[in-house]
Order: sequence, then structure tokens, then C-alpha cells
Amino acid sequence: MADYAVGIDLGGTNLRVAAFRPDGRMLDKHGVPTNIGRGPDALIESIAAGIGYIRSERTGERLLGIGVGVPGFILLEEGIITKSPNLPGMENFPIRDRLEAAIGAPVILENDANAAAVGEKWMGAGRNYNDLVLLTLGTGIGGGIISGGKVLHGYLGMAGELGHITVEPEGVCCGCGNTGCLETEASATAVSRMASEAVRAGRSPALARRTGPITSAQVFEAAVEGDEAALAVFGRMGRALGIGLATLINTFNFPLYLLSGGVLAAWDLFAPAMLEECRRRSLTFRQTDTRIDKAELGDEAGLYGAARLAIP
Amino acid sequence: MADYAVGIDLGGTNLRVAAFRPDGRMLDKHGVPTNIGRGPDALIESIAAGIGYIRSERTGERLLGIGVGVPGFILLEEGIITKSPNLPGMENFPIRDRLEAAIGAPVILENDANAAAVGEKWMGAGRNYNDLVLLTLGTGIGGGIISGGKVLHGYLGMAGELGHITVEPEGVCCGCGNTGCLETEASATAVSRMASEAVRAGRSPALARRTGPITSAQVFEAAVEGDEAALAVFGRMGRALGIGLATLINTFNFPLYLLSGGVLAAWDLFAPAMLEECRRRSLTFRQTDTRIDKAELGDEAGLYGAARLAIP
Repeated sequence: MADYAVGIDLGGTNLRVAAFRPDGRMLDKHGVPTNIGRGPDALIESIAAGIGYIRSERTGERLLGIGVGVPGFILLEEGIITKSPNLPGMENFPIRDRLEAAIGAPVILENDANAAAVGEKWMGAGRNYNDLVLLTLGTGIGGGIISGGKVLHGYLGMAGELGHITVEPEGVCCGCGNTGCLETEASATAVSRMASEAVRAGRSPALARRTGPITSAQVFEAAVEGDEAALAVFGRMGRALGIGLATLINTFNFPLYLLSGGVLAAWDLFAPAMLEECRRRSLTFRQTDTRIDKAELGDEAGLYGAARLAIP
Repeated sequence: MADYAVGIDLGGTNLRVAAFRPDGRMLDKHGVPTNIGRGPDALIESIAAGIGYIRSERTGERLLGIGVGVPGFILLEEGIITKSPNLPGMENFPIRDRLEAAIGAPVILENDANAAAVGEKWMGAGRNYNDLVLLTLGTGIGGGIISGGKVLHGYLGMAGELGHITVEPEGVCCGCGNTGCLETEASATAVSRMASEAVRAGRSPALARRTGPITSAQVFEAAVEGDEAALAVFGRMGRALGIGLATLINTFNFPLYLLSGGVLAAWDLFAPAMLEECRRRSLTFRQTDTRIDKAELGDEAGLYGAARLAIP
């Protein structure tokens, strides 16, 4: 009998469900809006329906288990989300137990960045590594730490908040209360903000011609077209990333640090400053073959990782 | 037959040797100058003589093994020191194999800060913890990370270089090539340097009256006597420590972070700024019962830890 596991990416906007073989092959993938406004019960029904659909296509096969990646803090043992700005109403709801009851198969919860790190280790750029750090560069910056082949959770499941390590002590205010977090200096949001500042200061005629809020993709386009201010934004972003990565390298001495997110398209623009900063700030980086590289699974990493966690 | 293990602290200045029961009781302790100038062979002889002396006092007991804490990078598997500014001439010398041959018992090498962290976990302030970080505040700053009850080594044994995480990107130049390392902002050396700067700027009449280079102990005395400039130095040191600790807390979510070193005498002077900085920069610290505390074993932590590593 063929086995499969299901990975779920429970985002604030979209709910994605995919089935995988234990060898890592993705079988199929479905996505629907999360519709978090309809409440926890409706969400459990949506997820159960998605899994029911996958099951109906795989009659005669065995469902090993279901992993769910969620954007927020979780209690692994209890199977609940304790904090998730993107999933209002789900906090302290017994999501794992309710899903297990609805589906009749084991369910495991994991933070989405941790799940993505597990996915990259399983089938992505971290395949041959037991120790790695993944930074997910998006609206915010998430972190997943794999140590000895397993997610480093910390004593309350809050480890890997790498978007909130300090890289500029007197930098921009962050929602977490800190100033100069990696997230406020190197996320896609930071790229947009720095570009807007440049426009207001009259330093970017190219970006000033655009209308509406500036997206990081527009900053990338302007930089590719040679706009100095846009190029400088990616230099600043790379420098901030380098400060953060040097600290992680000096702390962990892991062989691999992966970056993911749409802003990776701008790798050639920010990586030189990032790597220069790492060389300057980390003797370990200078003296070893430590790798900083692109993740490979894109926004599917979390689906892979969630499914992997459900395989015994 | 009673068992014992031997812990050795191989410092650049002093060689200390102590015997321990497997339950953590220290039996006796000896110290001699390291005399590194006499070369590796003489050092092996010194260590073997020290252990021979302990053995002669414990006839009829069984020596389980010997742990050696060394200031520098080591290759655990190979049992060699790859880099140690304080032990010139020992680099790439097969110290472990030579000691095993001279002594006839198993020998394990460990970095000194890692050994101190193991010691604190075994018999010190980390007794009830499986996950902790130790910062040793001295001339430099060392780090030891205990994760899941074991030393986190990284892939080349270079993990825990926590003295070199960046806390002030534009700060003072460090020997490692970085600027604004935790070590250049919060070590005893940093305290002396900041106090000297205050004297040169005419801000500390109390310290200006002293002769010779200012020691961190003198800065402490001046601060206790109410010297504003000396108090400000400990405020700056505490702030730098807080930036570094907040980053470690956001990264690891461990329950315990320990500080050791002579400068702990000034805890009441630097801890308020340190804790305020942690609260501001770490949501995890604010929302949990994460502890930052004093280590308990002083400069014997490394002896304890080295011996513990030698107990199967």
C-alpha cells in the first residue's frame, strides 16, 4: 500500500494543501482562500474538506499524517497557536486536536519558518546538511534553525525569531518594540520604505515617476535599470543582512545559511554588500567554507516541511 | 572501587588540575605556571606530572578520564588545537594523543568557555537546565552554548564565538577584524578603555588621580564611590550586553543566560541597563520568564566542565 503525508501552509491569506510521498515527491497541491474572518470552526471545516478531497483521490493509499505550518508562535506539545497576528481568532484555539478529530489522522503543528527550514533540509538547498539556518525574507523576516537534523525550538517554541535580532541599535522602530531589527532593515517592507525615503529626499527620479506606494519589486526594476538610489537601497539591505548573518555564523558555526523570499530576485544587487559585511564581521566566515545561499523550494518549502514533520 | 575524573584548565598563564567524583564533588586542586615558552613537550610533561601527583594520592581508585579546557579553537575529533593566541606553539600539535600516551587514560579536549558552560550546567547555576548560554566576561568575552544538554559545537567546533557578535556596527575595532563586537563594548578591557577615554576627556577626576593604566577593578571602585563617569561606563557596558543578550534570547529562546567573570562584582551597576535593553529589544524576554543570572562556579567552572566531559 502506497503511503503519503499531507503538508498544509495555513497563511493569513491562503490555505494550501499538498500531498507527498515519503521520498519527497509532491503528488498534488490545492489552494483556497483562508477566510479567517469566518472563524476557527469554519477554518477546521475548510482544512478537513481539503484533506477529504486529497483522500478521495488516493483511495487504497495510507495517510501517514498531516503537518500544518502556521505564521505565529505555537506550543508544540499542546498543539495550539499562542500568538499569530495573521490568524486572528485562532490564538489558544485547540487547532491540532480539532483537526485530528475532524480528519482521524495524526496532526503536527509547526511555525511556518521552521517548517520551511525543514522543507529545505528535506528536499531543497539543505538536502545534505544536518545544521542550517533559513531566513525567510518577505513582508517580515522569519527564521528557522535546524540543529542536529531537528528544529531548534527553545523552551517555549519561540526560538528562531531572527527577524528581530538587532543589526542597527539606533535603527527604525519595529512592531516588536525594538529599534533596528533585521526585519526593519532588510525585509521587502524595509526595501519599500528605504526607497520611499529616497523619493521624498528627491534622490530617485526613476521611482518618483511611479504612482502609488512603492513595492520592493518596483525598487528592483529601478535598480536593474541603473537607478542609483534603488541600487543604494539594496546595498543597505545587503549590509544589514550581512551584520545579522555574521552574528549567526559566529554563534552557530553551521555550514549553511539559506535565504528565501521574492526579494531573492535581487540577489545580485544585495549579495555583494552582504558577503563583504560577513567577511569583515566574522573571522569564522573568512576562514572556513561556510555557505550563504539561495533556498530552492520557494514558497513551497513550508508545504514540504510540514509534510516531512508528519512522516514518522 | 571509587572512581574519579580529572579536569584541567590549560590557560596561557596557569595550568590547573583538579580531581572530581562522578557526583560532582571536587577532591583536590593544584595549580602551576603553564610555562608555554618551554614548548609543547615540556607542557605535556607538566600535565602528566600533575596527573601523576593526583594519582599517587588516589591509589586503589579508578581514573575515568581527563578533560582539558583550552583557550582557542579545537578539532574535537582530532584532538588538536587549531588556533590559540594564548598558547603559542600548541597549534596543530597532537595534544590529546600525546597526553593519552603519557597518561594512559582517555583524554578529551574542549574550548574553555564551552567547558565552563558544561561545568555550570553540571554543578553550578545551570544545574536544572538542559539549554543555556554562558558568557565569560574577562579580558575578552567567550561563549558556551548548551543545547539539549550538550555543547553546541558547530560543524568545525567554532560555535559560541559570542564575544564577536556585533552590538554596535560602527563601534570600536576588534582584533577579529569586526567593529563593535560585544567584546569591544562589554569586556573588562572595554570597561578599562571607556574609563581611560573618560579620563582623557576630563570627565572623571576620581580616576584621573590614579596612576598607571586603569583596571576594570579601579573603575568599579570609582563607580561605587559615586564617580559619574565610572557609573556611565558600566551603563554603556550593560547596554552593550543587553543588545547581545536580546539577540541571543530572540535566537535561542533558552530559559537561562549566565554571566561569569570578575566584572560580575559590578552586577548592580551594569545589570539595570542590561535588563532594560533586553526588555526593549526582545519581545520573548518581556513575555516569558527567561532568566539572566550570575554563574556560580567562578573560575573553577572550566575545571568542573572539563572533568564532567571525561566521565562516560
